Amino acid sequence: MKLYTYYRSSAAYRVRIAMNLKGIEYDSQAVSLLDKVHKSAPYLQANPQGLVPALELDDGSVVGQSTAILEYLEETHCNTPLLPADPAHRAQVRSLANTIACDIHPLNNLRIQHYLRDELGADKSQVDQWYARWIHTGFGSIEKELGQGNGSFCFDDAPGMADCYLIPQVYNAIRFNVDIDQYAAILSVYNHCNTLEAFQRAHPDQQADCPSS
Amino acid sequence: MKLYTYYRSSAAYRVRIAMNLKGIEYDSQAVSLLDKVHKSAPYLQANPQGLVPALELDDGSVVGQSTAILEYLEETHCNTPLLPADPAHRAQVRSLANTIACDIHPLNNLRIQHYLRDELGADKSQVDQWYARWIHTGFGSIEKELGQGNGSFCFDDAPGMADCYLIPQVYNAIRFNVDIDQYAAILSVYNHCNTLEAFQRAHPDQQADCPSS
Repeated sequence: MKLYTYYRSSAAYRVRIAMNLKGIEYDSQAVSLLDKVHKSAPYLQANPQGLVPALELDDGSVVGQSTAILEYLEETHCNTPLLPADPAHRAQVRSLANTIACDIHPLNNLRIQHYLRDELGADKSQVDQWYARWIHTGFGSIEKELGQGNGSFCFDDAPGMADCYLIPQVYNAIRFNVDIDQYAAILSVYNHCNTLEAFQRAHPDQQADCPSS
Repeated sequence: MKLYTYYRSSAAYRVRIAMNLKGIEYDSQAVSLLDKVHKSAPYLQANPQGLVPALELDDGSVVGQSTAILEYLEETHCNTPLLPADPAHRAQVRSLANTIACDIHPLNNLRIQHYLRDELGADKSQVDQWYARWIHTGFGSIEKELGQGNGSFCFDDAPGMADCYLIPQVYNAIRFNVDIDQYAAILSVYNHCNTLEAFQRAHPDQQADCPSS
């Protein structure tokens, strides 16, 4: 399988973590969002959605959207499950993941920041406030849910699907200087997951397309 | 099961369609977003995320996030599957659904419109342009994918998970006067699904909390 990725894309970061946790070997093809390679004709041919990540399967078909990719990996590589067995527990994990995937990340990605700045005339402070608002709104409810956990992972005692979403989102919050000190349970999970090799290898700084690597 | 719903919430609309397609009986409890009931203490007690929809299971636990709810229903009510059997096809359907759930809907919901207006000083025309931009960006890629289909449903020849997302999103686009005449494949699926009773009963106008009903 080939993963179209970009080192700083937090949706790609989710998939890299899941691939590593499941021990799936894959080829990486970097798609620079900064250089707008995701809008180039060859990439749009492969993935008409024009976004990263996308996963090219062995039959040549391409799956876009990180959540669809993660569910696909879960269904086809069952040895290391990232969802618990009980449907109600699975729903709880997916709900956490979707709070990030739907209620935080889409509001803060690069194209939105550009729109706010270029088309609505927002200044840097207004863009920063926008960014922080959706982090705080989402993290507020996630913190309550994680507060009932053991501080190591989002659910139970093994890394799972919600951790694949949370760790990249915390990384983003830190990168954009959002003060998240109040979220003790979230930070505990973040710090614990980052002691694991699967998360470390998926980190933006460890990617071949990271300028400093 | 009890569904916390709001007639115009397009995420709740998705769940209502799925419940109807699967023939699941449920109680509805209306949560008025207009009256900010979703931010009231009793509702936050039930669903700390403070959003609709949420599904209260028979054991009293509450699942938030429409995507988590739909996956839960798919896993627990298998008689009328909303996802195809083949993992690559399932990924294709989920990718379509997530384009709406992540790349269109979160950018256009009420809290975002309020933020643009109240905190960034956007006027009505700017909010309308914002709204239309994300519809067109998402519908552009969805139209390409649906153009390869049969014009009745998003995937194959039965209503499925992607239709649960698409029909409410088209309803929203029409309600906000976005010109979507160019999306022939999307409109074909929209019109066909709306001939089915499961979609008709889930429509905002048919809900008990709809002011005109």
